[in-house]
Amino acid sequence: MAVRAAVAGASGYAGGELLRLLLAHPDVEIGALTGNSNAGQKLGALQPHLLPLADRVLEPTTPEVLAGHDVVFLALPHGQSAAVAERLGPDVLVVDMGADFRLKDAGDWERFYGSPHAGTWPYGLPELPGARAALEGSKRVAVPGCYPTAVSLALFPAYAAALAEPEAVIVAASGTSGAGKAAKPHLLGSEVMGSMSPYGVGGLHRHTPEMMQNLGAVAGEPVSVSFTPTLAPMPRGILATCSAKAKPGVTAEAVRAAYEKAFADEPFVHLLPEGQWPATASVYGSNAVSVQVAYDAAAGRIIAISAIDNLAKGTAGGAVQSMNLALGLDETTGLTTIGVAP
Amino acid sequence: MAVRAAVAGASGYAGGELLRLLLAHPDVEIGALTGNSNAGQKLGALQPHLLPLADRVLEPTTPEVLAGHDVVFLALPHGQSAAVAERLGPDVLVVDMGADFRLKDAGDWERFYGSPHAGTWPYGLPELPGARAALEGSKRVAVPGCYPTAVSLALFPAYAAALAEPEAVIVAASGTSGAGKAAKPHLLGSEVMGSMSPYGVGGLHRHTPEMMQNLGAVAGEPVSVSFTPTLAPMPRGILATCSAKAKPGVTAEAVRAAYEKAFADEPFVHLLPEGQWPATASVYGSNAVSVQVAYDAAAGRIIAISAIDNLAKGTAGGAVQSMNLALGLDETTGLTTIGVAP
Amino acid sequence: MAVRAAVAGASGYAGGELLRLLLAHPDVEIGALTGNSNAGQKLGALQPHLLPLADRVLEPTTPEVLAGHDVVFLALPHGQSAAVAERLGPDVLVVDMGADFRLKDAGDWERFYGSPHAGTWPYGLPELPGARAALEGSKRVAVPGCYPTAVSLALFPAYAAALAEPEAVIVAASGTSGAGKAAKPHLLGSEVMGSMSPYGVGGLHRHTPEMMQNLGAVAGEPVSVSFTPTLAPMPRGILATCSAKAKPGVTAEAVRAAYEKAFADEPFVHLLPEGQWPATASVYGSNAVSVQVAYDAAAGRIIAISAIDNLAKGTAGGAVQSMNLALGLDETTGLTTIGVAP
Amino acid sequence: MAVRAAVAGASGYAGGELLRLLLAHPDVEIGALTGNSNAGQKLGALQPHLLPLADRVLEPTTPEVLAGHDVVFLALPHGQSAAVAERLGPDVLVVDMGADFRLKDAGDWERFYGSPHAGTWPYGLPELPGARAALEGSKRVAVPGCYPTAVSLALFPAYAAALAEPEAVIVAASGTSGAGKAAKPHLLGSEVMGSMSPYGVGGLHRHTPEMMQNLGAVAGEPVSVSFTPTLAPMPRGILATCSAKAKPGVTAEAVRAAYEKAFADEPFVHLLPEGQWPATASVYGSNAVSVQVAYDAAAGRIIAISAIDNLAKGTAGGAVQSMNLALGLDETTGLTTIGVAP
Repeated sequence: MAVRAAVAGASGYAGGELLRLLLAHPDVEIGALTGNSNAGQKLGALQPHLLPLADRVLEPTTPEVLAGHDVVFLALPHGQSAAVAERLGPDVLVVDMGADFRLKDAGDWERFYGSPHAGTWPYGLPELPGARAALEGSKRVAVPGCYPTAVSLALFPAYAAALAEPEAVIVAASGTSGAGKAAKPHLLGSEVMGSMSPYGVGGLHRHTPEMMQNLGAVAGEPVSVSFTPTLAPMPRGILATCSAKAKPGVTAEAVRAAYEKAFADEPFVHLLPEGQWPATASVYGSNAVSVQVAYDAAAGRIIAISAIDNLAKGTAGGAVQSMNLALGLDETTGLTTIGVAP
Repeated sequence: MAVRAAVAGASGYAGGELLRLLLAHPDVEIGALTGNSNAGQKLGALQPHLLPLADRVLEPTTPEVLAGHDVVFLALPHGQSAAVAERLGPDVLVVDMGADFRLKDAGDWERFYGSPHAGTWPYGLPELPGARAALEGSKRVAVPGCYPTAVSLALFPAYAAALAEPEAVIVAASGTSGAGKAAKPHLLGSEVMGSMSPYGVGGLHRHTPEMMQNLGAVAGEPVSVSFTPTLAPMPRGILATCSAKAKPGVTAEAVRAAYEKAFADEPFVHLLPEGQWPATASVYGSNAVSVQVAYDAAAGRIIAISAIDNLAKGTAGGAVQSMNLALGLDETTGLTTIGVAP
Repeated sequence: MAVRAAVAGASGYAGGELLRLLLAHPDVEIGALTGNSNAGQKLGALQPHLLPLADRVLEPTTPEVLAGHDVVFLALPHGQSAAVAERLGPDVLVVDMGADFRLKDAGDWERFYGSPHAGTWPYGLPELPGARAALEGSKRVAVPGCYPTAVSLALFPAYAAALAEPEAVIVAASGTSGAGKAAKPHLLGSEVMGSMSPYGVGGLHRHTPEMMQNLGAVAGEPVSVSFTPTLAPMPRGILATCSAKAKPGVTAEAVRAAYEKAFADEPFVHLLPEGQWPATASVYGSNAVSVQVAYDAAAGRIIAISAIDNLAKGTAGGAVQSMNLALGLDETTGLTTIGVAP
Repeated sequence: MAVRAAVAGASGYAGGELLRLLLAHPDVEIGALTGNSNAGQKLGALQPHLLPLADRVLEPTTPEVLAGHDVVFLALPHGQSAAVAERLGPDVLVVDMGADFRLKDAGDWERFYGSPHAGTWPYGLPELPGARAALEGSKRVAVPGCYPTAVSLALFPAYAAALAEPEAVIVAASGTSGAGKAAKPHLLGSEVMGSMSPYGVGGLHRHTPEMMQNLGAVAGEPVSVSFTPTLAPMPRGILATCSAKAKPGVTAEAVRAAYEKAFADEPFVHLLPEGQWPATASVYGSNAVSVQVAYDAAAGRIIAISAIDNLAKGTAGGAVQSMNLALGLDETTGLTTIGVAP
């Protein structure tokens, strides 16, 4: 029994990565592919790496085109998903890869996105406490942002075990695909190769409230987040360096034990052996998350570092993983923990 | 029925890529993994992207360790395969990813490698005329070099259709993984990032006689090859720009027709639509070959350009494709034409 | 006595590099800086690496703004220089960094640029036979294209010494800054990092007639050029791999001697010691040209390879070098042969 | 009057960058160049970008070779400078680019370097309070580490103005040249391109006590430092993201004012206009430091970010700047604030 899937927004980076994964999924049949300005073009000209779909033609993103599928993935600009989703009916699984349904607090949404809040859907990060149960059988999924995926997985075990003070400091480096496919001068290869630069400093990044929401829920108290994203000269990957002051009495052993426990049964999160540190190259193209943690006794801080592929586990892989849970399939179907390296 | 495969030389780039592909192959079970200086180490420290094998320990490369497998892959330094192969017995499929058994002319071997010629095995480039039949059921396979794979696929249709003069001029750019994992100063990231440079100019590269052998066999006459390899600032990929003077009377239509015919039934070689040109990013991590060809009327030359992943189709993917043929499996089993991009 | 220089098109890559060089020129005072869509903005926001000019404001590109300077550099889109130049008066030195005045053949211009031919100015590649004399004291200079600079310097000694047949085959790799600062999807960092790709294949590149013009003038007969440009994952640099069949009787010694003679007194062109090959990293940011040549006896071809910085010697450095000659300054003033490496 | 300078360790990255800068210094004449394993080789083979010195031959690093110079720069492995320095006499200016004489606390040195402490020299970061006076006329200079340069300049204004709590959290990304020219597998281009990875996490990096020393001296109290260095896929550059909790009552205006005051008269440190953030590309090859600071009211933290070229201001540029002060030259002689970009 094949699940028939439509992808709205098939010409962008998230849509392209999703199609790459769906092509390898044994239970999925790829249905309608839609675009906006690119409707009418062949996918081969837009996503030349997806050879099996080279002759497929993009259709416009309309309810008619998206009708008749078991699953509809929305890879649309922020704020556009709600209008599409409400036309799709309650029996269709809708997986939103945008931000529209991630936040619980309407005020947060409005402050960062400037439009009315559309609602909150089950959150597609199964590794968070309680998240898996909410996804099983759900007809709606909000896929997390790429930074919140990396950061929440790096830090939640410290908060779940009550080891860390509720003030997290995070510096994350992202590959350029996280900024999307729209041509902007500062994203030109000439600008980004050989350069590291920050952006959205000082609480201005839209992903900050999502991190606070995730970590606060685990901690049982509000967690402040100082988040600085940086743009790194690579196409893919996020390296998130996260730290927080340790609570009194914390030991290196307790920290290690908390992380071992948190990820013991997780198929995609890999706590590295002590002494080995994550590298984004190791998870290139895979749904794996590499995590390492250290207790810096001199500074009194817990330092947790994660590496993900921003397009895979950070977006499209997380979407497929959640789809599997929602449809009652094995959570790992069609996904890999094997990176493409070097 | 699982095919049990051993990999000699599992710590290098070719061995690592082979393991990545074998992990995705439905009919293969991974047996012994061997190394030399790395024997005794866990694979997780050497190939951190291969998470499912992280706890496997490398064994020494001995006949005893390699015994008892259906297939043995040799990813060894040039000149070491013959000694290992002769201890493996005639019933084991031996796939040599080194150069030892590629050349037919013993003099060529001795001139470029400086040791006695070990012999010639069926050549693992199924797309070449006659090659597929020689591979089916064979117990020995010589996997082609990465440059000869890219160049032979780009140019053989022009020679098969007698459209090109027997003097080919080739300039190819390779990612740095083609130079292997041994630490050498000129391969440091600091040296290669931001830099293009040639090497082995003027007929000095060991892959030149292999190209001449392939193209000459198709042309039915000796083909001279002027080959200049260059090192490009990327981990993977080969872009081969190949040209030859057109024979009198050749037309653009005849050139296009020859290439369409040559690749019509090939599962991995994709002749791009006119106007679209290959990019190595499109075949990253895949077994696909992107080819485009043009007839430059003003210069009177046929220009054929191919893009491959040097580690995949250029080495480990070609090895798996040939293994499939040798074992009687579907040629495409476990291989993909979908690249990891962007 | 300071030379007062204006730069029209100061917000692009060519204009920015020119300003970088002029800031280091002891005899130049930087006057008006103009832009089009960027007029009114501070240079610090557009060219943040030019700290001493951070507070300068771009003015519109008008004759009034450009009046009153000793030198006016035009870094404008192709086809726009003629209209500006004719308003500047015959006593102002006008250095055009665009293509408008490079070609002698009006038909070539019209075929490749699709507009009426504006004329031909002294050609700013002093190393070509006869070029230096035409530049000295001239009030008009046409700066060569970046590819023609690299290719002409690599090959002209072979033609000057009548060693090569008049059919050149050229494959060149360029950094992305050669494509300019206009935001286009295929130039995004996500697209170009990790990828090599050709473009303008089969005689379609606008720089081809310029190469033919240069090489033909030296050879004394028409030289056909098969030119394939490729885009490399680096911000700067051109590596040009150029070859031609050797004329009968040519020897490796004769080839070496011709190149030694051609560059013996050149301040910027460096013929590398035998066995060492050019790398674009070595000339990063400098006006130097690294050249090496080999005679491939087996293929009967002369292979000459050059490395330049496309923005420096290939554009802005060539412009300053020509300005020096035109103004009667020492040709090397303000220019360096020292690259920024690694 | 030319200052005659010798460079011990001329074949490495620090030595090469120093020579690049000294070649552009109007008052310096380059004397002896020494190496160890490379003694006897021509510099052209080791530092091909330094064309004017291509024929200079490296000599062994002995007191005899280094004698007779006004300045001797030591670019040697850590722990080797003391033995060389004591043979050079008290009247020679010795500028040590290694770590040997940076730390004041002998215990810190022994803990991180495992050898006896050689002493403490005037610290070559003129921008720190009090540092400039100690350098003027000194015959000994300890050049700071690259990370401490970036971090100290980013944070000291906050401590000088008593705005920040004494617990700094720092995540810095460095280009690969910071790891030197010795060939190690994890520094291969194949490994680093496309990858971000941390190292020396949890207080293990040798630069941490140097940062604590600098910040503590300014703060007038011990400052703890949580420092995580990461390796970025670029040859040069450090981006240091530094933060600390703001003391009670701090405002954004007070933070801005403190930074404006600290850098008002500094020739190399540039506080960017509000809203613009540092990028390492902007300072490529220059001695400039780009700094920006923000007050994150929600998290209650001051976030200061700096970008430097690790080889220039971070090593060789800092060495020349200090040499200028020690010799009584203008501090900026031979140095530039203009980066090579894009």
